[in-house]
This record gives sequence, C-alpha cells and structure tokens, in this order.
Amino acid sequence: MSYKIWTDVNLLTMSDTGSAYGLINEAALVEKDGLINWIGNKADMPVHFNGEIINCSGAYMTPGLIDCHTHLIYGGNRINEFEKRLNGATYEDIANAGGGILSTVRATRAATEDELVSSSLKRLRQLEKDGVTTIEIKSGYGLDVENEIKMLRAVKKLDKISNVDVVATFLGAHALPPEYHDNRDGYINLIIKDMLPKVAEEKLATAVDGFLENIGFSYSEMERVFSAAKEYGFDLKLHAEQLSDLSGAGLAAHFNALSADHLEHLSESSMDLMQKSGTVAVLLPGAYYTLRDTKLPPIGSLRKRNIPMAVATDSNPGSSPVLSLKLMINMASTIFGLTPEEALAGVTKNAAKALGLSDRGLLKAGLRADMVLWDISHPAELAYQVGGSPVLSVIKNGNVVYQNT
Amino acid sequence: MSYKIWTDVNLLTMSDTGSAYGLINEAALVEKDGLINWIGNKADMPVHFNGEIINCSGAYMTPGLIDCHTHLIYGGNRINEFEKRLNGATYEDIANAGGGILSTVRATRAATEDELVSSSLKRLRQLEKDGVTTIEIKSGYGLDVENEIKMLRAVKKLDKISNVDVVATFLGAHALPPEYHDNRDGYINLIIKDMLPKVAEEKLATAVDGFLENIGFSYSEMERVFSAAKEYGFDLKLHAEQLSDLSGAGLAAHFNALSADHLEHLSESSMDLMQKSGTVAVLLPGAYYTLRDTKLPPIGSLRKRNIPMAVATDSNPGSSPVLSLKLMINMASTIFGLTPEEALAGVTKNAAKALGLSDRGLLKAGLRADMVLWDISHPAELAYQVGGSPVLSVIKNGNVVYQNT
Repeated sequence: MSYKIWTDVNLLTMSDTGSAYGLINEAALVEKDGLINWIGNKADMPVHFNGEIINCSGAYMTPGLIDCHTHLIYGGNRINEFEKRLNGATYEDIANAGGGILSTVRATRAATEDELVSSSLKRLRQLEKDGVTTIEIKSGYGLDVENEIKMLRAVKKLDKISNVDVVATFLGAHALPPEYHDNRDGYINLIIKDMLPKVAEEKLATAVDGFLENIGFSYSEMERVFSAAKEYGFDLKLHAEQLSDLSGAGLAAHFNALSADHLEHLSESSMDLMQKSGTVAVLLPGAYYTLRDTKLPPIGSLRKRNIPMAVATDSNPGSSPVLSLKLMINMASTIFGLTPEEALAGVTKNAAKALGLSDRGLLKAGLRADMVLWDISHPAELAYQVGGSPVLSVIKNGNVVYQNT
Repeated sequence: MSYKIWTDVNLLTMSDTGSAYGLINEAALVEKDGLINWIGNKADMPVHFNGEIINCSGAYMTPGLIDCHTHLIYGGNRINEFEKRLNGATYEDIANAGGGILSTVRATRAATEDELVSSSLKRLRQLEKDGVTTIEIKSGYGLDVENEIKMLRAVKKLDKISNVDVVATFLGAHALPPEYHDNRDGYINLIIKDMLPKVAEEKLATAVDGFLENIGFSYSEMERVFSAAKEYGFDLKLHAEQLSDLSGAGLAAHFNALSADHLEHLSESSMDLMQKSGTVAVLLPGAYYTLRDTKLPPIGSLRKRNIPMAVATDSNPGSSPVLSLKLMINMASTIFGLTPEEALAGVTKNAAKALGLSDRGLLKAGLRADMVLWDISHPAELAYQVGGSPVLSVIKNGNVVYQNT
C-alpha cells in the first residue's frame, strides 16, 4: 500500500515536545496502513514517501477527538420532560408522571437492539462530524440481564457499522431497577453472579462502571461490584462525587480504576489516592451546565497534582443531551477554567488514558492515523468558539470519513 | 414561474393558531416567486399547484432563523486574550497589554473593507449552515467616520454576496475612541454632525444603536444621539442594563426603539415603559455565558407583561464568540429558563420584530419563503439538544442554500 501525505499543516501533536500543544509548524504527516508512519517538519521529510499528497494550506490538525464518557445508546428521549420542566413542572411532578431515568429504562427495555442501534447511529454521526473518531458508550438503561446484554450488543454493532471506534463499558450499577426496589442486595448479586460472567464470557465490554451516589449505589455496594469485576480482569471506572462527597474517587483509585468521572465534590484525600494510582479525572461540563450546577470541580488542585484531566460529553437523554465534543472543549474552558491546551488534551491524550488506549490520542509515529483538520488560525480557537463547526475533514485510520463542504 | 411544494412536513409556523408553536401536522407549504404562496394541511391543498414536490418524510420545518443582534464584522480576533485569561492573566493585565475592545478597534481600522468581508463571510457561513437566513450586523469597531462607514459598506457587501439577508445597524456610540479620551462631547458631536448624516445619505444602515453603560455612554449622551437619529428617520436600538441599571431600556422605550438588548439589570419601571412602547427585549445568553455572569434578566416579569422576547448570538470577538444561533435557543432555555416555544419565537417572530421586519419570522402565506428543515422528532428538541446540528436544509427565498449531507 502507498503513503498518504498531509502537508503544509500545523500539527497539534499533544506530545511533550516542549512547545505548547506539542505544536509543529509547517509540518507533514505521513500515513501508511492506517497508522502514522512519519511526522515532522515538512522540510525534514525523507524523499522516499510517494503517494497521495493532501495540501492543507496552513490548516491545523489535531488527533481525532475521543469522547471517553457517554450514554449514547438509549430508548425514547426526555424532550417532553425537558419542556415540562421549563413550563413550570417540578422534578417531583415529573417523577410522579413516570419521568426521570426510569422512563429511559422503560423505553430502552421496550426497544429492539436494531432500534437502539439506528437511533444512536444518528447521534453518533453528529459527534463524528464534529471530530470524534473514538467513543465510549455505557450500558445502564437495561438493568436486567437481557437488556444490559442487548445494550452492549448494540454498542458492538455501532462499532461495526460506523467509522468511529466504539468502546463498550458495562454500567449495570447505574440505578436500582424498580423490581429490586426493596432488595438492593439482590440487585448487586444479579450484577455479580449473572451479568458480569455473561459480559466477560461474550467479551461485550472492556470496563465496568458504577454510579456511587445517594441516589445510586453505596461505597460498600460498589466495592463488591469492583472486587468481582477485577476477578474477570475488567478495567474499572466510576461516576463519583457528582452530587456529594462519598469518597467514590478514592474507592476508584484504591482499585486502580482508569478514571473517576464528574468529581464536582471531590475531596483532597480522594485526590491523594488518585494521584498515586494515576486515575484520570474525567470532567463533564455538559452535565454541570444542563443541571445548572454551581459547585465546580477542584480544577486548581487537580492541576497542581498533575492528575490527568479528560473532558467528555456525558451524552445522555436526561442530564446532558450533548451532541458536540468540541462544545465541551469550550465549556471546559469557559465554565471550569481549563486552559485551551488542557481542554484539548482532555479530549485527546487524556481521554485515551481514561479508556486505557495507548494507540491513539497523540499525533505520533506508530499510533493510529486518526486526525481532524480544522479551519482555525490559532490552537486556542477550538476552545474560544461557542458553537459552529470549523471542521474541514475527519480522518479515521488514514481515510477521510467526513469532509465539510 | 412554477411552484415548489414541501409536503409531508410538520410546520412550526409560530403563528397564533391556538396550538403550541403554531404547529400544523401533516402539512404542505407551497412557494412561488420567493414567497410562501399557500400553507396548510396537505389534505386541504388545492390541486392546481404544479411544480417540484419535496417530500419531507415527517421532518419539522421552522421559519428561517433571524439573528437580530451581532457584531459579526471585525478585524483580528481575541483568541490570544482568551487564552491568556485562562492561563491566569487578569482583565487589567490584558488591558495593560493593549487588549480588550480597543484591540479590536485597532485591528478593524487596520483592515481593508475586503479583508473585513472575507473574514466575516466565513463566520456568516457557519451561522447559515445552522439555519440563519437573516442577520443584523452592527458597526462600532471603527469609531471614526472613515472606519464606521467602511464597516457599514462591508455589511452591505456581505448582504450582496451571501445568501443571507444582512441588515446593518450603525453603532458609532459603542465605545469612546482613544483619541477622544478627554473629549466625550467631541465624540458625541462627531457622531451627530458627521457620522449620522453620512450614514443617512448613503443609506448604510436602517437603525442606530448605542451602549448605555458606565464603560460606554451615559443616559444624556444617548438621549442626544437618539434625538438626532430620530430626525433622520432611523429605527433605534440600545445595549441597556447589561452591567448595571441606568434606565437605558426606559430611554429606548421613550424613543419607541425597536429593541433594548441584554437587560440583565432591567428594572420594573423601565419594563413599564417597554410594555407601553412595544419595545422588544433582546436576550443574549451567549454573552451571559461567556462572561460567567450571575445576574439573570427578569424573564418572569417580561413574560407576565407580554413584552416580546427575542434571542440572539451577540456574536463578537470579546464577550460572545458565538457561531450558532441554535445553541442560543438551548442556552435561552437552559440558562434563562425560557420555554422551548419562547426560545424558538425569540429567533423567529420576535427577532423579526426586533428588526422591524414584517415580511418574515413566521410561516404564513405572503411572507418570504425563508425556512429551515430539521431532523427532529419533537419541536422542543431544538432547545433540548446541546450542540450538534440536526439541520436537513436551509431555504432562502424558496431556494435551498444549504443541504446537510
């Protein structure tokens, strides 16, 4: 196979080259067999590369964006609920009318696998046009063996039929299903004894996640789930400290989890543990924004400790109906105060870390040729713009999968 | 000329039909000569319409979106300043380094008319793809006769070369230029005696605007500008009550201004006057969001008084680098608490009112055939989604000017 050469491009490699964003000006990037074969200043390019040459006229290129925390697959939607709330209904009114997460569980259980795939494929396509080349999708709206498995199979299918690499996370411990209302232990046992073995056997997910919160599961319940998941060799992730501090991030770190996510109420002592374990802090500004939250995650402390920060959409029908990861770069800066460089690292190299993927997230020889070409004049423009789409093209494994016209 | 017929479409007419959003289900819309010729249930469509038939497969159609408050034309950008602030620089540091609005004034003065047109055309195209068919653009970064005129000519040119209808507003009273630092009256005289006559003579703008604020112009200064503008027959608009209550909206209402804009600090007494004069309240959630403001405009009182509320991007390089009016529908709901129907009215019929345009803003026979076709399943989805673009096509004067692929 021959080479593909992107030239006259400004590369934001996100590597530790000593310059901000790992910038290489007037660069070239050479692809072969879906991988980055060579990268550097175009003047230094060895002459032996022959192939298609794509002149980028000074545009900027970043690694393909990685959305490392989503609930993109679900049945139904919560648009009516959103509208009712803005017309004056309280959360209680909505819960009494059968709304909230359990309405998504009902609709997801009622949907076929194909219906789940086709509704989420539309959403995935919107994220892809915005630069996403890898996405994580969680189960967690099935909450019984059959429907959790159905969701994870839908994730697999999305991976197969789309250009985006789709990574599956098992989130059986998302909410207590109504049929276990009086039997919390019974549900934890169901997760441990029935769901986990099946997910492991069919290799339907690489990581196990949970929602440690007063309205989710307790520290000791998640401890049981994590202990069992560890036995099967799953990677671990945790929704932690979103609404209150229950030391969830500390628990995640104790189990060497890949990431602890949300973290608005994160404590210094949990951060101590995250720092030791290398657990990534996944920040979700879309949920913060949609819920009109006022308690900011402790960005300054995370920064001081060099805890890697990732940024994701948390795309879900209730608390974060977000369909642009690029907008999350802006919200991470504007709302959370991340520098534009930190925010971009959050959707590239640190998002890869949060998924345990070492073959992407940077522009570097040997890694996957997943890239986005942007019509911008300064790297920080990706964080500065509110809405709008300066994408020129999205490249997955060396192939242009979206071209803006 | 023959007819164009959009059929199997759900029309959000925004007319007072008694149903929410002025919805007509299973409808058809017939266009001729750039105007809406007939509208209604498709079963009632007279058979005599022959022409191209576009089957919309149950998609939703709204009026073309109208962005009624922007500063889209400017030289340079403020990306560096944005990045410096997030890296810890204070507003004072930035001002001392020559940043802030005066840096945009310098860059705008240094740019040629063609440079201003080409840089803003790119931004305009992003807004257009998002559904905008009419936009207002203000001058106000020239602040001398030559450069204010240059900006307004650039607006005219944008109108001519783009598919979007571009409406010009003269905003000489945007900021005090540095050369009048010690001579406020001198600058007001320049506006009244040199700028206004020229803008009127060359018909370069339909409305006159100002920034009434402690860091802008005073009540009595704006009173002088408005009195003079009135003589020339200009429509009036005012940036009012953004940072403090200086009764600007009351002044605007007293002069029967089309709109008062921002309004975070709007008082009940100014609202009394706006209610009487029919002055539109233009809400700018993008600036509120970008500046991390905490004082909400009094939506409840505006609603109770039936003061029409419009919503706009305020697109500008400093306080609102927004390039999606659709995202402002979401922010108007999520941040300001507008219902999804109010937010959509804010970028259609009430935005038309804020510009004094009676030929658009609704889907109604006789009005311009400016429409957007959306891939959504519920009208409120336009407000619900955070980012992403469900636009199927954008239609201006009956012609498809953007088709999403």
